[in-house]
Amino acid sequence: MTKPYVRLDKDQAAVLLVDHQSGLLSLVRDIDPDRFKNNVLALSDLARYFKLPTILTTSFEDGPNGPLVPELKEAFPNAPFIPRPGQINAWDNEDFVNAVKATGRRQLIIAGVVTEVCVAFPALSALAEGYDVFVVTDASGTFNELTRHSAWDRMSAAGAQLMTWFGLACELHRDWRNDVEGLGTLFSNHIPDYRNLITSYTTMKRGS
Amino acid sequence: MTKPYVRLDKDQAAVLLVDHQSGLLSLVRDIDPDRFKNNVLALSDLARYFKLPTILTTSFEDGPNGPLVPELKEAFPNAPFIPRPGQINAWDNEDFVNAVKATGRRQLIIAGVVTEVCVAFPALSALAEGYDVFVVTDASGTFNELTRHSAWDRMSAAGAQLMTWFGLACELHRDWRNDVEGLGTLFSNHIPDYRNLITSYTTMKRGS
Amino acid sequence: MTKPYVRLDKDQAAVLLVDHQSGLLSLVRDIDPDRFKNNVLALSDLARYFKLPTILTTSFEDGPNGPLVPELKEAFPNAPFIPRPGQINAWDNEDFVNAVKATGRRQLIIAGVVTEVCVAFPALSALAEGYDVFVVTDASGTFNELTRHSAWDRMSAAGAQLMTWFGLACELHRDWRNDVEGLGTLFSNHIPDYRNLITSYTTMKRGS
Amino acid sequence: MTKPYVRLDKDQAAVLLVDHQSGLLSLVRDIDPDRFKNNVLALSDLARYFKLPTILTTSFEDGPNGPLVPELKEAFPNAPFIPRPGQINAWDNEDFVNAVKATGRRQLIIAGVVTEVCVAFPALSALAEGYDVFVVTDASGTFNELTRHSAWDRMSAAGAQLMTWFGLACELHRDWRNDVEGLGTLFSNHIPDYRNLITSYTTMKRGS
Amino acid sequence: MTKPYVRLDKDQAAVLLVDHQSGLLSLVRDIDPDRFKNNVLALSDLARYFKLPTILTTSFEDGPNGPLVPELKEAFPNAPFIPRPGQINAWDNEDFVNAVKATGRRQLIIAGVVTEVCVAFPALSALAEGYDVFVVTDASGTFNELTRHSAWDRMSAAGAQLMTWFGLACELHRDWRNDVEGLGTLFSNHIPDYRNLITSYTTMKRGS
Amino acid sequence: MTKPYVRLDKDQAAVLLVDHQSGLLSLVRDIDPDRFKNNVLALSDLARYFKLPTILTTSFEDGPNGPLVPELKEAFPNAPFIPRPGQINAWDNEDFVNAVKATGRRQLIIAGVVTEVCVAFPALSALAEGYDVFVVTDASGTFNELTRHSAWDRMSAAGAQLMTWFGLACELHRDWRNDVEGLGTLFSNHIPDYRNLITSYTTMKRGS
Amino acid sequence: MTKPYVRLDKDQAAVLLVDHQSGLLSLVRDIDPDRFKNNVLALSDLARYFKLPTILTTSFEDGPNGPLVPELKEAFPNAPFIPRPGQINAWDNEDFVNAVKATGRRQLIIAGVVTEVCVAFPALSALAEGYDVFVVTDASGTFNELTRHSAWDRMSAAGAQLMTWFGLACELHRDWRNDVEGLGTLFSNHIPDYRNLITSYTTMKRGS
Amino acid sequence: MTKPYVRLDKDQAAVLLVDHQSGLLSLVRDIDPDRFKNNVLALSDLARYFKLPTILTTSFEDGPNGPLVPELKEAFPNAPFIPRPGQINAWDNEDFVNAVKATGRRQLIIAGVVTEVCVAFPALSALAEGYDVFVVTDASGTFNELTRHSAWDRMSAAGAQLMTWFGLACELHRDWRNDVEGLGTLFSNHIPDYRNLITSYTTMKRGS
Repeated sequence: MTKPYVRLDKDQAAVLLVDHQSGLLSLVRDIDPDRFKNNVLALSDLARYFKLPTILTTSFEDGPNGPLVPELKEAFPNAPFIPRPGQINAWDNEDFVNAVKATGRRQLIIAGVVTEVCVAFPALSALAEGYDVFVVTDASGTFNELTRHSAWDRMSAAGAQLMTWFGLACELHRDWRNDVEGLGTLFSNHIPDYRNLITSYTTMKRGS
Repeated sequence: MTKPYVRLDKDQAAVLLVDHQSGLLSLVRDIDPDRFKNNVLALSDLARYFKLPTILTTSFEDGPNGPLVPELKEAFPNAPFIPRPGQINAWDNEDFVNAVKATGRRQLIIAGVVTEVCVAFPALSALAEGYDVFVVTDASGTFNELTRHSAWDRMSAAGAQLMTWFGLACELHRDWRNDVEGLGTLFSNHIPDYRNLITSYTTMKRGS
Repeated sequence: MTKPYVRLDKDQAAVLLVDHQSGLLSLVRDIDPDRFKNNVLALSDLARYFKLPTILTTSFEDGPNGPLVPELKEAFPNAPFIPRPGQINAWDNEDFVNAVKATGRRQLIIAGVVTEVCVAFPALSALAEGYDVFVVTDASGTFNELTRHSAWDRMSAAGAQLMTWFGLACELHRDWRNDVEGLGTLFSNHIPDYRNLITSYTTMKRGS
Repeated sequence: MTKPYVRLDKDQAAVLLVDHQSGLLSLVRDIDPDRFKNNVLALSDLARYFKLPTILTTSFEDGPNGPLVPELKEAFPNAPFIPRPGQINAWDNEDFVNAVKATGRRQLIIAGVVTEVCVAFPALSALAEGYDVFVVTDASGTFNELTRHSAWDRMSAAGAQLMTWFGLACELHRDWRNDVEGLGTLFSNHIPDYRNLITSYTTMKRGS
Repeated sequence: MTKPYVRLDKDQAAVLLVDHQSGLLSLVRDIDPDRFKNNVLALSDLARYFKLPTILTTSFEDGPNGPLVPELKEAFPNAPFIPRPGQINAWDNEDFVNAVKATGRRQLIIAGVVTEVCVAFPALSALAEGYDVFVVTDASGTFNELTRHSAWDRMSAAGAQLMTWFGLACELHRDWRNDVEGLGTLFSNHIPDYRNLITSYTTMKRGS
Repeated sequence: MTKPYVRLDKDQAAVLLVDHQSGLLSLVRDIDPDRFKNNVLALSDLARYFKLPTILTTSFEDGPNGPLVPELKEAFPNAPFIPRPGQINAWDNEDFVNAVKATGRRQLIIAGVVTEVCVAFPALSALAEGYDVFVVTDASGTFNELTRHSAWDRMSAAGAQLMTWFGLACELHRDWRNDVEGLGTLFSNHIPDYRNLITSYTTMKRGS
Repeated sequence: MTKPYVRLDKDQAAVLLVDHQSGLLSLVRDIDPDRFKNNVLALSDLARYFKLPTILTTSFEDGPNGPLVPELKEAFPNAPFIPRPGQINAWDNEDFVNAVKATGRRQLIIAGVVTEVCVAFPALSALAEGYDVFVVTDASGTFNELTRHSAWDRMSAAGAQLMTWFGLACELHRDWRNDVEGLGTLFSNHIPDYRNLITSYTTMKRGS
Repeated sequence: MTKPYVRLDKDQAAVLLVDHQSGLLSLVRDIDPDRFKNNVLALSDLARYFKLPTILTTSFEDGPNGPLVPELKEAFPNAPFIPRPGQINAWDNEDFVNAVKATGRRQLIIAGVVTEVCVAFPALSALAEGYDVFVVTDASGTFNELTRHSAWDRMSAAGAQLMTWFGLACELHRDWRNDVEGLGTLFSNHIPDYRNLITSYTTMKRGS
């Protein structure tokens, strides 16, 4: 009657980054741009930190949608990059689906722009094929809150799990002892409040 | 346990526009009037662009509710137009249901004013008869957000899919290559941010 | 998999008004007081208009919670009125449950203060006994929006239908032709925008 | 001690449209894009309706800022158009100031993107030179509300009058009898609620 | 350097109600309709309670703006009522100004729809002629908050005092002992929270 | 042209607490009740910490307004307490003004319920008599934000300085070295975030 | 098809307080700090009032996360306290799970910081093991509302019941007659509006 | 009657950064932390870009307030850094005032934490001594919006100009031709929307 707890496993998960393009980003208005940029880069950093297979895709790079933002291109120089010639749902692109299958992973972490299309369509398609889908809600953006809530409702009702990048990182890491410094650095770089805690702490430690 | 992915198909879908009347529109306060007008006209344009069978209906046109807004009347001169003599739930009107059945479509895209009545009642009735129902949340309006959330909850729990006009257009179109210019024009006419992207792009293209 | 459409029927429905007391009302902060008062009185008027069996109950009238607001007392002089000696969940009070059973109705329309207690508890109890429950979200109030959303989630997940008074009135009435003037008066008395439509309309009618 | 009432006069006023460019518009996030577009076009229409001398200017059209939005270019084919080679404050551009002086007007209506720079700088400069300045607050946009309030405070303290396009139109028109249809059309084209009033009214008039 | 304290005096004050018409009210979106209706009726009741000379005026009653709302007409059957043939600023209408002068009052309490036009224009004109002006901010409405803040800034900078109906009533009444029951009734009828206090209080008094 | 900097001096300031009564507090809806309670108690604590002469007054304690909240009564057992027999503006009460004069202070710190009446009226009266007035905006509450902004505008335009309790404490204290522990305790008791800083700090100090 | 009504029972319930640490609390920004502190202390008081077995746990007390807030430590001097050496999900810590099992309770009331991690992870784990889980939404905090809504959706879909501390207290208490004074004191200490009701009530009782 | 236009001049301006300390930053809740961090770093970058004399100061670095955030320390290795031994108003510290005077600048750009104290106090003191003061509203933070608005009102009334970092940069730069790349880089590093414009633009340029 209820969704079972599908727990993220860093050996089972792959990351799909869909259409974070310089033009399309001007459509995102449900999250402040400073915060949104930070969330996307945090997701990018965590994908690399946990060495999750990551797939990049774009829609119509040569037109008004603009290119993939350079930070993501640089972060994943060897990742499969599938510029789609026209398919709006990335799952309709054979190369994309093949790239997903090639990872061998069954837990798909999806983020993109705009939420109700570039995220929701492949999420629904992947769910229909039996994948476990985790939507990164704070690294996905769209026109406004009304649209966001509609999209979340549709994806959640279809079985997707709604998470944010911080929750993903914590569920993947499991135990601080696996690497205190690595996770601490990830948080310090992307959570100003956390960085402040560390600054106060290390300053005192040094001083004492 | 979860809703399956029912994907919109332009050969399976019909559009029902319920009670967008000049008087009733003064009741809509959960969406800004400029935005709401744009959303309704965008839905109207996409219905025509995808040549979806469209049905118009009104409640008590001769009274304070006022007539159907002229833009919709002009957009669909040959569509079935059912001024209901009194039924609040359009699905209680035999002519309306017959018009729906005459389309032969099983995917119903519904928008109207006000959400919890003119949209929710026929949506729930259609779901009960086995139709797939897609509520256009941003082309449906009501008194306030509290009312909207109650109505969304009721419809979603009954199986309706909550979508916005942009998501509808993308899911119906499937692939930009089917007609780049047509879809681009639809977006340019109804998404100022997108129009700006196109203006910048085409200006540069011309200039280079 | 989804909730079926349980349609309100004025011959099947009863109204339960729980703890709208002069002291407790000072706790309601998720709805503006002007709007909340109007919603409660509208619900009261519709219960009388549709001649729905109505049951009043209060908690600790003699203490700081204060008495039932006089408007409700006056509106239902002959309704069962059960001042509970201590039970927080009205459904734990035998007299209250007996009063409900005595109506013979299986569709329960519940409103009260505060939402997560005085409404949610009897709603969950009634659902557990197989009643159909309709929560009047805009005639129920509580401390803040966080509390409201928690309470709505709990009730909706348990099978309750979330509605507002206007939706209730429309679903109960079914067809304007049953009584145009009666329903119009109800709306005119409680929806300023609607009253304005009627004022403009009747003024023009008279003038023409 | 207080600002005197400087009343707009259509024979004394000129309109300055500063940097409504396709790229810069993506920075505007304090007003919804649908509403902002409508406000700018309404201002454009009223400038033409009242035959106010209008001056267009842009900053760096050939770079990322993008060209002036085409609607404004088309609306004022014969207006002075000053693409500034680099000055951020339009008032630092001699051609711009000369164009203003050439109008012979002392009441300057200013709108632009972004508010605290493209509007505030020439507004403050013009005030310093003794002009009466009217800022069109709803046809000027910027990054967020915090920025907007800072900019409004600075301009108001310096003597600018904060107005919206609707107030401008009413103050310029003075009396409906000067041209009922003209002003009514302006409002109908840019205020959906007003258009609905007219639709209901004319439908009834026709019907009676 | 600062505004002096001009204190309202019930023998010096007059009330001007400008354009509260059934059509124009659909434009008011910066205040919830239930609250706005209550505020306007509270202002009407206080004008009568303090026997303040009151002047009613409307703009274009026969067109889409609609008639003055009936509640105000009924509340002031003998008040000067000036339907303006076309002047947008009521102060441009000679009859209106004469009616104001005929009261002999120098403190003008102004409310109307919409704030930046129907209130601000006569307020600015009256200030320019040396009247003390008190704007009833919560009985005046307009399109949105951006417009409201612009209008408030313009009026305040010109010397108007911004007040709400409750503050007006208290400043006019001066001392509860002048009439406890009268003022209490006014508050009880228009402030649900206050009515609840009175209900609890009188119930206990009776019971003790 | 601008207000001079009148700096608070603990030897020049007195505190006026106006009508924080158990009934009237139910009217306060522009600040959350948890936060408001904390702010009022913080102001009470700072008045005692700085040994500022403090005056308490209430309006109609025996009626529905209710008694002064017990915390304030207990905090100032020896302070002048003036239950006003009817005057709404405390400054109209001779005993109250005498109590103020008896302090010999010219800087008046005023807080109360509701802002636009119980605070604004004596503030405006005191300003008119040449006192320096500091309104404690976060220890004063009223019906809603619209009312608050109107009241702030009126008081600020008349020369009042708008401050919050934390700013008052800092301006009165001048230098931490005057008493680190005392001020730290005041902040720790009323600012949870500050208390957490101290907890982390002292824990580390102890541990090191 | 819907969640059954699992009713809290004070003999079946245990409370888990997860990571309310002085450093981590600076991350909580979806609830005002004054309100959040009050909610956590209210939950603590109710756990003691109902004598519910309570378990405390922290993550990395010696690092930047900071120690458990002292109020909780003092409230439960004899409760199991499990400082986790590294596990992020408390349920991954054997001592913690053993402590839960040792209570013999099957209804787990969970609150913590941050919601989507410290609350959601053990909540999902406990649900997976067949426990009934009640999330205290207002005593759990996180970065922002977007994160909160994602976390609520994930937990609710997995079967958790979302409640607030006031609802918990009422459902556990069942009947005021079990102890009027005890429950009244709990409410009076943590709900300012309720305290005011009691103050007014007892003052009148005493006076009469 | 109005404030004159004091225009920022990069040869007249100095920057004062007051108390951006790792502990105090946890008090800032009127601006999102991601955005606030970005604003402070942008202000830091612009101070260096325009080579403005910059002064750093802190309050009680060794206590719970924590050290200056490391980014600012690193950005200005040679700037005067005045850790105040206790003075809350930095202007009460002789070293600080001497450092200001040593710059020879009369235009002071001030930002800090918290707004109503660390910014407002030195701002008011500097204004009193005849300096021109520019408050960087978006690089100054405080507890909540109520506090912010009070602080802005006090500073603006005393003659301070409220600006944001972007406006500062534009007013200081005057003309893009002074250095297109330098200003463009500043904007690109701190305004994601602007960076996207540049990405799209340069990609197309390269491609054409």
